[in-house]
Amino acid sequence: MSTIVQKYGGTSVASIEKIRNVAKRVLEYHNQGIKVVVVLSAMAGQTDGLIQLAHEMTEQPDPRELDVLMATGEQLSVALFTMAIKSMGYDARSFLGFQVPIRTDDLHGRARIHDIETSGILKELDAGKIVAVAGFQGLDEKGNITTLGRGGSDTTAVALAAALRADLCEIFTDVEGVFTTDPNLCPKARKMDFISYDEMLEMASMGAKVLEIRSVEFAKKYSVPLHVRSTFTNGRGTMVIAETKDMERVLVSGVTYNKDEARVTITKVPDMPGIAAKIFHPIFRSGIVVDMIVQNTSSEDGRTDLTFTVPKTEFHKTMELVKDVARDIGAERVMGDENIAKVSIVGVGMRTHAGVAQRMFQTLAGENINIMMISTSEIKISCVIEEKYTELAVRELHKAFGLDDDQIQEES
Amino acid sequence: MSTIVQKYGGTSVASIEKIRNVAKRVLEYHNQGIKVVVVLSAMAGQTDGLIQLAHEMTEQPDPRELDVLMATGEQLSVALFTMAIKSMGYDARSFLGFQVPIRTDDLHGRARIHDIETSGILKELDAGKIVAVAGFQGLDEKGNITTLGRGGSDTTAVALAAALRADLCEIFTDVEGVFTTDPNLCPKARKMDFISYDEMLEMASMGAKVLEIRSVEFAKKYSVPLHVRSTFTNGRGTMVIAETKDMERVLVSGVTYNKDEARVTITKVPDMPGIAAKIFHPIFRSGIVVDMIVQNTSSEDGRTDLTFTVPKTEFHKTMELVKDVARDIGAERVMGDENIAKVSIVGVGMRTHAGVAQRMFQTLAGENINIMMISTSEIKISCVIEEKYTELAVRELHKAFGLDDDQIQEES
Repeated sequence: MSTIVQKYGGTSVASIEKIRNVAKRVLEYHNQGIKVVVVLSAMAGQTDGLIQLAHEMTEQPDPRELDVLMATGEQLSVALFTMAIKSMGYDARSFLGFQVPIRTDDLHGRARIHDIETSGILKELDAGKIVAVAGFQGLDEKGNITTLGRGGSDTTAVALAAALRADLCEIFTDVEGVFTTDPNLCPKARKMDFISYDEMLEMASMGAKVLEIRSVEFAKKYSVPLHVRSTFTNGRGTMVIAETKDMERVLVSGVTYNKDEARVTITKVPDMPGIAAKIFHPIFRSGIVVDMIVQNTSSEDGRTDLTFTVPKTEFHKTMELVKDVARDIGAERVMGDENIAKVSIVGVGMRTHAGVAQRMFQTLAGENINIMMISTSEIKISCVIEEKYTELAVRELHKAFGLDDDQIQEES
Repeated sequence: MSTIVQKYGGTSVASIEKIRNVAKRVLEYHNQGIKVVVVLSAMAGQTDGLIQLAHEMTEQPDPRELDVLMATGEQLSVALFTMAIKSMGYDARSFLGFQVPIRTDDLHGRARIHDIETSGILKELDAGKIVAVAGFQGLDEKGNITTLGRGGSDTTAVALAAALRADLCEIFTDVEGVFTTDPNLCPKARKMDFISYDEMLEMASMGAKVLEIRSVEFAKKYSVPLHVRSTFTNGRGTMVIAETKDMERVLVSGVTYNKDEARVTITKVPDMPGIAAKIFHPIFRSGIVVDMIVQNTSSEDGRTDLTFTVPKTEFHKTMELVKDVARDIGAERVMGDENIAKVSIVGVGMRTHAGVAQRMFQTLAGENINIMMISTSEIKISCVIEEKYTELAVRELHKAFGLDDDQIQEES
């Protein structure tokens, strides 16, 4: 008898009617003899409402108490869902984080799961019940309620699937699956049938916000097969699984972009040991997350240019911090640019194929798009370009790597 | 160093602003060196909203899951309150039912407290923190969330005060205290300074809905002094305490009434053993709560009249049930009356004074009010009268027993 963990997001449980529909969907599985553990998010809008309430009370709500507050959202969902199942004549039981328990560290608002006790859930499953678990919440060693941060219900679902050794973890959401690129931006985007964990990680961190990145890391670590699919249709979604030989035949799986970053350049930095640490120290200390960092080989005068990107929201603060440092270390000047975008191509096939970067550069050059920064990883190449060319670049790269839905998939 | 448990009801925490005011009030005590444990209800309206949500899902929500749902209300209040305290620069910690824990039986929706573990709370109090406990909720032996039923936060507060051996339990509400009668009905009603547990029990069960009756029983059992007072003024309220000699000098402490009952009379019931059991069996089995029962001495023909009262909402059902039984046992006829009211006088002084009942009957007679039923207990006398005379009867009894605020309190 197989076990499936299904996670339904906020839009899937946004109303009494929608919760009832989720219950019907879950019963279809149950009636096939599958043991189903359902992980639910808070009803759409609820989490934002709770955060707002806390901020009406105080600008900086106490993190421990904020978690106590936030945890009510998922508590509401699982209670209503379980009532729905029982009203349909089936047996079910809800579990809150403390009742499983899902044990976490004590980092309120962004706790990490340490371990999950499965005996309680297994007992109910063996008794033929449908089990509903509140997503996003856990319990620390001292018995405090913790939450896992935004999108934490995905992580709850994957961690439960790993702990229960479930056959599959299905993430039901409001999109049909993972697409080769943003369908809003590129009408020829295709839904992928399969994607590897590593590709998904690169896609997720680039703004393809279908899955919470930690849940993908978790799934990869414990080899949990993920199925990302729509709550509102019956079609197959995208399977996120370990890399297969087949995947390597495809050069590029997807094209992503990110318009939320700004670029900072320091020119003529003295190229000496410890200089990068000196520059980034005040930035890191301020909690600013730096994404790309590019440093050129130094010129003959022993000086180099250093360029990096930060979130647009931190741009002005970063500029101020960097100007101080630049003066201290005797660099020439600091330049900034908010009108940039990052376009990336992702694919495990890159590992074994040469010429992928070359094709990307040629494609952009063919449209007269200037490349400001380049950064590469094993399965991803990112280029920073002028923001206004984002849509054009994504569409052309999508076509160039054979991803358009009217193209036959390119092979090696 | 003294310890006080304070309970704030739903209207006292109905908004962010009101919660902030409660926090300020609590800090006044804290700053006097008093250890304060605060028990909070759900924000006014929230509990009804949650019940409505559950009933939108299904007509008969599963009791276990309804408790999971309901418990979110108080969880919200304690989190927001604790944030408020912390934002004012003081230290505080919230406790949910499962965190204390407050252990109860497993009767969902009307659970009874078995015991309270105090070590966690005491530790935080000793560390100088203000402790906020979610009212109304507990945990059964199997780790399920339970709730204590309407008004359950009063019981939480009193039980905590007993367990912590607190010096005082203060119930903050939207009225100034316990009144000699309903001020809306009798403008001369006076706020009492003191009332005994027993009197309060009789008052509470009669509809003076200031305190949940179980909390008074609890307070009496464990000799917890209660102070019922207003959240919105600084005045002294009413102390509910063990009976004192002083109290006995007052004949009658208060006048109460109840318009929610209906009367059922069965005439010429054969007076034989087991007959009452036969009549009430179907009523009790239907879960209908019978209040007063009066049976006259049987006449010479070995037959008697039996009269009792039931809630108005159960009147028609009761009449049907009783008509069937009356036919079976060969009684003469069944009569019903929905237009009745019960007026009662309550006072521990009655125990040691004769003539109280006589004065009540005379007072009603003086206004030409017919008495349909009489029932007496040690400290209460109740008369059923026509409903339309309720206000008149209450005002005249209030005056006759010297309770009007322009009268000097009558003494023995």
